[in-house]
Amino acid sequence: MREEEYLQCMHFNCIRSPEGALHNQSVAIVLAVDDAQRQAVEASGRGALAIAWHERPDEPLAILRNPEFYVHNKEERCARQLGTTHPHHPYAEIIYRAGNWLVGGDLQVLRRIKYDDGLDAYRLTPRELRREFHKRGADAVFVFQLRNPIHNGHALLMTSCREDLLRRGYRNPVLLVHQIGGRVKADDVPLRERILQNQEVIAEGILDPDSTMLGIFPSPMMYAGPTEVQWHAKARMNAGCQFYIVGRDPAGVKHPEGDRDMYDPWHGKKVLLSAPGLERLEILPFRVAAYDKQIGKMAFFDPARADDFLFISGTKMRAYAARGESPPDGFMGAKAWKVLQDYYARKREGSESG
Amino acid sequence: MREEEYLQCMHFNCIRSPEGALHNQSVAIVLAVDDAQRQAVEASGRGALAIAWHERPDEPLAILRNPEFYVHNKEERCARQLGTTHPHHPYAEIIYRAGNWLVGGDLQVLRRIKYDDGLDAYRLTPRELRREFHKRGADAVFVFQLRNPIHNGHALLMTSCREDLLRRGYRNPVLLVHQIGGRVKADDVPLRERILQNQEVIAEGILDPDSTMLGIFPSPMMYAGPTEVQWHAKARMNAGCQFYIVGRDPAGVKHPEGDRDMYDPWHGKKVLLSAPGLERLEILPFRVAAYDKQIGKMAFFDPARADDFLFISGTKMRAYAARGESPPDGFMGAKAWKVLQDYYARKREGSESG
Repeated sequence: MREEEYLQCMHFNCIRSPEGALHNQSVAIVLAVDDAQRQAVEASGRGALAIAWHERPDEPLAILRNPEFYVHNKEERCARQLGTTHPHHPYAEIIYRAGNWLVGGDLQVLRRIKYDDGLDAYRLTPRELRREFHKRGADAVFVFQLRNPIHNGHALLMTSCREDLLRRGYRNPVLLVHQIGGRVKADDVPLRERILQNQEVIAEGILDPDSTMLGIFPSPMMYAGPTEVQWHAKARMNAGCQFYIVGRDPAGVKHPEGDRDMYDPWHGKKVLLSAPGLERLEILPFRVAAYDKQIGKMAFFDPARADDFLFISGTKMRAYAARGESPPDGFMGAKAWKVLQDYYARKREGSESG
Repeated sequence: MREEEYLQCMHFNCIRSPEGALHNQSVAIVLAVDDAQRQAVEASGRGALAIAWHERPDEPLAILRNPEFYVHNKEERCARQLGTTHPHHPYAEIIYRAGNWLVGGDLQVLRRIKYDDGLDAYRLTPRELRREFHKRGADAVFVFQLRNPIHNGHALLMTSCREDLLRRGYRNPVLLVHQIGGRVKADDVPLRERILQNQEVIAEGILDPDSTMLGIFPSPMMYAGPTEVQWHAKARMNAGCQFYIVGRDPAGVKHPEGDRDMYDPWHGKKVLLSAPGLERLEILPFRVAAYDKQIGKMAFFDPARADDFLFISGTKMRAYAARGESPPDGFMGAKAWKVLQDYYARKREGSESG
């Protein structure tokens, strides 16, 4: 992003196209560089930067021409994007460590970005996703964004969305289960394990294999709550999804001080419903699912018999797996649970031996 | 503002009307109440709040019906509106002292708001301003927003804007000199002295008395830089102005830590030029004026002979007045300067005797 786009993103969560239309763009897509990097570009006199993986500096992925350097005001960026300047917000930590300059320009991507981690087949471009939806004959695409394993409550919700769409007259609604592919907090489950777990959920038929696609959205997790959820929705809208499922506290995180949510858990949904540039996307509000002890499975929460329900948060789920225990039957498919159990067992051994 | 409007204001600097149009609204217009006040409203069972001056609780100015209470997340509000959470930003100080709840609702204003400070005649409503512009036969209205006394550099700029508009074919451009009427920082010049000083500038003919109107914009100063300048512009657009003069660092302030500007001094102008909902307003960029030692008056800065120019900041101007000294001849009209000198003399005596 050049500064003009960056400022619009910070202040309006939108960027105006040359024709005057407003496009939702809530998060900054910027390259931070330090003083030495800026000086090197300017001293080279080439007026362009090559962009490459850190480990393979000789294989440029893209060229940034006519670069424009502007001040990386980290305090202001954190404030406007994260709603806090606290240095221990997980994405503020990354911003504060980054260079003092941002650089934008005219970007030419030279080759397809590959991660070579065995998961590249899950990283489809927006155009490829549209093609795939078309190939499957989808007349509606609904997306579930996540950075977590899928438990049966999530699955219930996705299945129930599909049923709603069928009731509304769609004949072939396709579900895109879209895992965040970029950096997550250290206590979130890594991408590989999430994909393996999701594959098991689909293989076990907990999600319908015929109408479900699993994919990776290669964005870092910013934990920017109502700001980030717009990006999650907009990027999928661009890839041909018409329906976006939103729940409690999307892209949320605990406040670094005290055991409270950083963002009001319902602001994400409210902001999505009023965001400029997302008018073409239909927001499907999330119903809360919990473990119903009466029937021994995940079910939609019924406040009339609240005591029958057990809420199993991500933290609680990780605690079960970390202790080698199992959650109540019906919380998650058995093979899917095993993926997590094995991961936490390795992690536990690693930390014990380490 | 109800929460739905507040959230749109925080995230988009815009509010969508029921018809779908986006209206610029960059600052929150909210009422903060504390726990006891909220409980009192709820216990009363009346479903309405009377709003009055603190000093005259029995003379309600307005009624807020169907009140909606929501959490006043002060950290997030400061972050998103001020670009900082620093407790010593001058408006953050006010937010952090306010109540823990915000309340919005359906507002009915019962009577005209009067301040009874002898300046109410300067406080015209948007409708009254439009009527006044019409009465004067204005075919263009340009506005200069300020919280400072007017020096001859400001006057040069305003006069030169008028000449530009005449050259563009307008026959009767009217200038609205619009002083911020609400709370300002303790080291800013108080409203009464600014109005007296501005009156002298007009009486001395430094600004053309026939085509200049002096008025008060009764908003508090928030020192919110690029966020606040949109509010300054939008409110005047609503009152019938077509042209808005913007300069360096509008609504700016020093960072509480270190001698640096809180906001990039050119972000205000850039944000105004791209802000949704301000398309009908033409932004007139500010040329920088400084004291030209060659000719002994304020003139547009010429970088080719930078050494001939003396920059007299508000701080420097206040320092002259505070020491009882005079700035160079030609910096400000003599009678206008005397208003400031007298004010600072009284202030000095007050603090010495105090």
